[in-house]
Parts: sequence; C-alpha cells; structure tokens
Amino acid sequence: MVPAPGTPLYAQVENALVDRIGVDLHPGDRLPTEDELIEQFGVSRITVRRAIQNLASRRLVVTKQGRGTYVATPRISQPLTELTGFVEDMERQGLHARARVLVVEESPASREVREALSLPLGATVTHIDRVRLAAGVPVSFDRTYLPPDLGRLVAQDDLENEPIFSLLEHRHDTPLVEASYALQASTADPAVARALDVPEGSAVLRIERTSYTTGGRPVDYEILHYRGDPITFTTRLPRAAAEPGSER
Amino acid sequence: MVPAPGTPLYAQVENALVDRIGVDLHPGDRLPTEDELIEQFGVSRITVRRAIQNLASRRLVVTKQGRGTYVATPRISQPLTELTGFVEDMERQGLHARARVLVVEESPASREVREALSLPLGATVTHIDRVRLAAGVPVSFDRTYLPPDLGRLVAQDDLENEPIFSLLEHRHDTPLVEASYALQASTADPAVARALDVPEGSAVLRIERTSYTTGGRPVDYEILHYRGDPITFTTRLPRAAAEPGSER
Repeated sequence: MVPAPGTPLYAQVENALVDRIGVDLHPGDRLPTEDELIEQFGVSRITVRRAIQNLASRRLVVTKQGRGTYVATPRISQPLTELTGFVEDMERQGLHARARVLVVEESPASREVREALSLPLGATVTHIDRVRLAAGVPVSFDRTYLPPDLGRLVAQDDLENEPIFSLLEHRHDTPLVEASYALQASTADPAVARALDVPEGSAVLRIERTSYTTGGRPVDYEILHYRGDPITFTTRLPRAAAEPGSER
Repeated sequence: MVPAPGTPLYAQVENALVDRIGVDLHPGDRLPTEDELIEQFGVSRITVRRAIQNLASRRLVVTKQGRGTYVATPRISQPLTELTGFVEDMERQGLHARARVLVVEESPASREVREALSLPLGATVTHIDRVRLAAGVPVSFDRTYLPPDLGRLVAQDDLENEPIFSLLEHRHDTPLVEASYALQASTADPAVARALDVPEGSAVLRIERTSYTTGGRPVDYEILHYRGDPITFTTRLPRAAAEPGSER
C-alpha cells in the first residue's frame, strides 16, 4: 500500500506490518527482529520501536521479555449497535478479513428457513457456508440462506473475496435496511469445531440474523457461530422508562 | 392472587397455575390431571383445557400425548434493547423470579473493579453473589460489585426478595440512566456450574454490565453468567450509514 503523503515513518512501518498479519504472519509467529526491521525499512531503531509499541497497544502483537515479539491471537471487541458485515467489522479494527467458502448450493428450504425468509412451501434457497477469518484466524462459521432469485446471482460471485452484504448492496441493487438478531451461548458441535479449528465443546456465540431490504422484505438469513474466546460484543442501553409503581 | 373483576374463568385457572410454577411446581413436574383441576377449581372441562392450551402456547407447560402435561423448562427470549433487571425481565414473561444470596461482603476492590466503578487505589467494594431463578430454575449467576457508600446500604436490604436495581432506584435515591454491556460466549467453570446446577463446560453467556446513575457515575458493576440453553437475547439493529465508496 502506498502511504498517504505526510504519513510518519513509524506509521508506515506499522501499516506495512499490519498488512502482513493474516497474510504471511499468523498468530504465534515471531515478528522480524528490530535489527531486521531497521534493515528492511531503512529506518532508525526508535522508529521501529514506536511502530511495535503501537501494534502492541492495538493488541496485534505481544512482546515477550527477552524472546521477541509475536503476532497475537486477535482480540475483537465488536459493537452491537448497527447492522454491519464481518469484513466491515474486522477492517474497522485493522484486521484483514477473508472467507473460505465450503458450500454453495441450491436446496429445498426447511420450515425454519422458509419462515425467516417468508418463502412459500416447496421453495428452494441458496445455501452458502463460509469460514470467516480475521488476521488469518477462523473467527466465525457462517451459514447463509438467500431467497432463490438473489441467491442464484450471488452464487456466481467471488465469495472468497466479496462479502455478501457488499454483493447485495452494490452489485444486486438490494439495499439492507435493518436486521433482527437472536444471540445465544452455545458449544461447538463437531462440524462447527472443525470449521473454527477449535476443540469440540468450546464456547461459541450463536447468532441468528435476518436482514431486511426496503419494504420489510427479508433477503438474508444467517446462522453465525462466533468463536467465544476472541470476540466480545459490546453495546450501551438506556434505562427503560419506569412504569408508575412498578417494581424493578 | 384475587382475580381482577371480569377475568374469564379460564384466565383465572391459567393465572393460578402460573403462580404455582416455580413455587410448588417445577420443570419436569406433572400438572394435576384435567379431572383434578375441574374438581379443584369447580370449572368445566372446556375451561381447564383452554387454560392448559394457553400455558402451552406460553411454553410454560408441555403436553405429552397420553402421558399428561408437564411443567416446561422455561425458554426465555429477552430483548437487549433497554437496561432492565432480572426480575423485570422475567415478570414480563410471566415467570416468577427469585434470588438465592450466596455472598455479601465488603472486600478490597481489584483493579478491574476499581476501573469499572472509578474507585481509587485501596478502595473497598461491596461484593454480592446471587443465583437468580426463573420459575424455580437457576438461570443466572450474578456477581455484583457496588461502591462502598451504596453497597453498605444495599447489604442491609432483603436481597432474597428485592432486586438491586429496585433498591438503588426506590430506596437509595440512585436512579439508573444507562449501562454498558460486554457479551461473550463462555463455558461453565466449576463455581458457575455449581451455582447454575449444570454440568461443567456447559454453554454460558457472560455479560459484564456497568450501570450508571446521573452525572455518568458508575454505581453497579456486575458479571452475569446466563445459562446458555434457556435464554436467547434479541435485538434489532439498523443498517450503518454507508461511507461513500466503502466496501461492505
């Protein structure tokens, strides 16, 4: 990435390293030494140290006394305040996001899927399974169901590199307006454990999300399984208006 | 409970049974038979059936073909849209709520607790551990930390029967304005498993919540551990305003 004019040297080094995390540097990997970075970037030791300190305060790396600096397992704190997609969420935190596509198929819709997408009995849906990675680490296993008209279009797209929200909004003329969420704590069954590369029985946050386009039409029903350990969802809620005489 | 004037008979029977759930009728218990209920309430079979159908559609009971009607494990769907307390949440779903108090003590505040409650180094806090029950089932294990001025007052109160939100707001002149939430999927460690009466390693939703009074003063820091299976948190989120040219 070409740095914007006026970007300080330490920020250029920092950004260059962020760009490598999840590409050729993965959690647990050792970063190049200070001397190697000084040599690679042609900058001073103080510049390299500042870049690494910034990465550490962003929790992207961990410095272990006397043993060097290592790429950290990403800790993700994600606001639950607006409908956002995985790639948006991760990029906001400076983490590379990618997808591994496991399944793309058209199949008969189950009752649960028909209800979520308001489809008639006998309808088919496009079913897409993806593992979403942040900084190279599998973070979410997403099972997506799309109504057949949109699903057939999306099934042709580059799902490894393009998020479904982006495809719906920018390529298939389907703006997203809002979504309903249902969150539940769960544990990883064998399929989820394999997809997320965690032991069976690990903590998983299961989110059912139905996204709506204009006119209240449901266009995307997803069951997301987030790894429990790296992700915290945050929100801020106002106190409910008290009903007169009510007990809290 | 004396029925309001004009309450239909089936609703009187329904309410009388709801009042017993979590008191002398627990999940898995068999409800009295139709004949017994007809006898007990002095009503017709059609009235008893309607009451039981209503309880079934509220998911408070399950009728097993030819084997009678049983109290169901409560399924709780809780909106995550306003700051509400446990008793409020459960009563809104027609479920009796109570608390079992395990710990009330004043102790030195850890760094995490000091940060959450904006307390100085060396401060003490009031630490309260409770198991919250809905319809007689342990649903949440709550660890609460209160600043010492308020905590010493609340520690004198009837914590088995009075929710802390109610005590703060109605007895100790401390209105709650809003709260920050951090949600994470987790699994039950031995202490949480014992408190919730579930196997170790069961799915648990861990919520850290800091509630604020007027002037942005934090007055209640809680770590809630909800049983994963009976509880779903729901919300509805609007689409984020798109940034021009941004990828989703």
